Amino acid sequence: MLNTHGLDVSAAIKTLVLILDLVGTFVFALSGALAGAKHRLDFFGIMVLSFAAGNFGGITRDLLIGAVPPAAITDWRYLAVSILAGVLTFFWHPAIERLRSAVLVFDAAGLALFAVAGTQKALAFGLNPAMAALLGMLTGIGGGMMRDVLLTEIPAVLRAEIYALAALAGATVVVIGQLLLLPSAIMAIIGAVLCFAIRMLAIRRSWNLPAPPD
Amino acid sequence: MLNTHGLDVSAAIKTLVLILDLVGTFVFALSGALAGAKHRLDFFGIMVLSFAAGNFGGITRDLLIGAVPPAAITDWRYLAVSILAGVLTFFWHPAIERLRSAVLVFDAAGLALFAVAGTQKALAFGLNPAMAALLGMLTGIGGGMMRDVLLTEIPAVLRAEIYALAALAGATVVVIGQLLLLPSAIMAIIGAVLCFAIRMLAIRRSWNLPAPPD
Amino acid sequence: MLNTHGLDVSAAIKTLVLILDLVGTFVFALSGALAGAKHRLDFFGIMVLSFAAGNFGGITRDLLIGAVPPAAITDWRYLAVSILAGVLTFFWHPAIERLRSAVLVFDAAGLALFAVAGTQKALAFGLNPAMAALLGMLTGIGGGMMRDVLLTEIPAVLRAEIYALAALAGATVVVIGQLLLLPSAIMAIIGAVLCFAIRMLAIRRSWNLPAPPD
Repeated sequence: MLNTHGLDVSAAIKTLVLILDLVGTFVFALSGALAGAKHRLDFFGIMVLSFAAGNFGGITRDLLIGAVPPAAITDWRYLAVSILAGVLTFFWHPAIERLRSAVLVFDAAGLALFAVAGTQKALAFGLNPAMAALLGMLTGIGGGMMRDVLLTEIPAVLRAEIYALAALAGATVVVIGQLLLLPSAIMAIIGAVLCFAIRMLAIRRSWNLPAPPD
Repeated sequence: MLNTHGLDVSAAIKTLVLILDLVGTFVFALSGALAGAKHRLDFFGIMVLSFAAGNFGGITRDLLIGAVPPAAITDWRYLAVSILAGVLTFFWHPAIERLRSAVLVFDAAGLALFAVAGTQKALAFGLNPAMAALLGMLTGIGGGMMRDVLLTEIPAVLRAEIYALAALAGATVVVIGQLLLLPSAIMAIIGAVLCFAIRMLAIRRSWNLPAPPD
Repeated sequence: MLNTHGLDVSAAIKTLVLILDLVGTFVFALSGALAGAKHRLDFFGIMVLSFAAGNFGGITRDLLIGAVPPAAITDWRYLAVSILAGVLTFFWHPAIERLRSAVLVFDAAGLALFAVAGTQKALAFGLNPAMAALLGMLTGIGGGMMRDVLLTEIPAVLRAEIYALAALAGATVVVIGQLLLLPSAIMAIIGAVLCFAIRMLAIRRSWNLPAPPD
């Protein structure tokens, strides 16, 4: 698809999405590697935590919708950015720890992108709207859950902060767009921005979901 | 298939099985939600535990036999009853806690149904009899195992009480029926009743499997 | 394929690989059963740990590459050797505990075989070389990771000893052989021997990978 300036717009969008996807993977992998370093895993363990945190959400989604082998297994770039995140963390984790607030911003961006892209993929594979939104959310939160399970901690996303809900909000925008036949690229952007905004606000204002009444 | 009174029997059976399946999902989801509430998860965490406890056994079975996407992902009703169980537990968990003995009876019924239905599905997908029985058992116990793993507890089913064995007994009846070409509906009922009876007796009499000798 | 003595060589190799595969499953299952006995699981729990430790790596690989249902589910012999390991451990775990150094040797052999065979299977399913090697490694380490997760311990392979790296070295030899079009049987043997040697040396000399610098 060429625009009036002769640029191939759809190829540019594809490249942009891939780059964002890899950035998201990288940032999630950082969170896995940092958690691994804190638990004094060895070099290999930190690589596993990197890969799991960066890719487990997408892998689970792909297994559930039947997109086998999962993209994270067939495309070497997901592995490459995961290992890069792991190696950087291994050698410079105190520095990355100090960048925590920047990492949180990128993490929110990764969450937004994963939720939106995961929802689109699930819709493309014929899942019903409600489940597509939930699989989009799972794409965003699955890696962090696996990271915590491997470190024998109750997944943080189950206990504190508005995180999954931000992902679900972004995913829901995509699904509504599909139901109303609105242009998917625009709805994806709106969904991602919404997810990102909710997540950033939740961090700033320490929003939490309620626990059950006693 | 119409019976002599002109009723569509096979449709009635199908509806009955679906209802029982949803009841089983609901009760398992209750167990997940209650465990989540006890661990002070937030609202979202309790929903995740509900869904995982209610559906993870069936999802795992479906992934293993190649029935993708799993039924729990494509049929919104499994999600709906899981969320219903989660919401009820969130707001009224002390009341549900008091109904514990009733919940245990329904849980035994859910186990019986999941074990039998899971075995039938595995047989329908061409699994060998021994594995079909084990996948039936897994359908019954998988949700509770995932619930415990997410809460970083050793799955209760691995340590105490006659639970998996009851499921396996029911599953075995179904498999034997298939091998001997007996009518599957009748064998399913016998299997489910056997599983239910063993489980209820195990609760009443505090039956446990032995741990290894010291 | 008949050799000059009239023996069917390829059938003999196939049988040999199957036997080695079952031996590997058996030894891994022993490690699962022993860990279960140490945590005072009941009879059923020990069987689950046996099966999980012996087969989870291969099952995960098969799900990821789309080889469904996984071999460990369709071939009853994997189940049989897993249960055998569990039963032996249940009744005689002190004796097996005393054979620990022999078990470690067999475990290294199992790791070597799983890594090499897992890599070959992943290549046969069209995975790219780097991912095939990692899936070979996963075949070798996945069972032990699941064993530890079920017992709510951080997987040992993430923290200590040269274990995954030995598997990865063996897997890499297989992949290089494929890329250079070298005879696959010979490269498989070299890979397996390399993995075994690294693992045994690591045990003897207590090699560990470094943890991240403080």
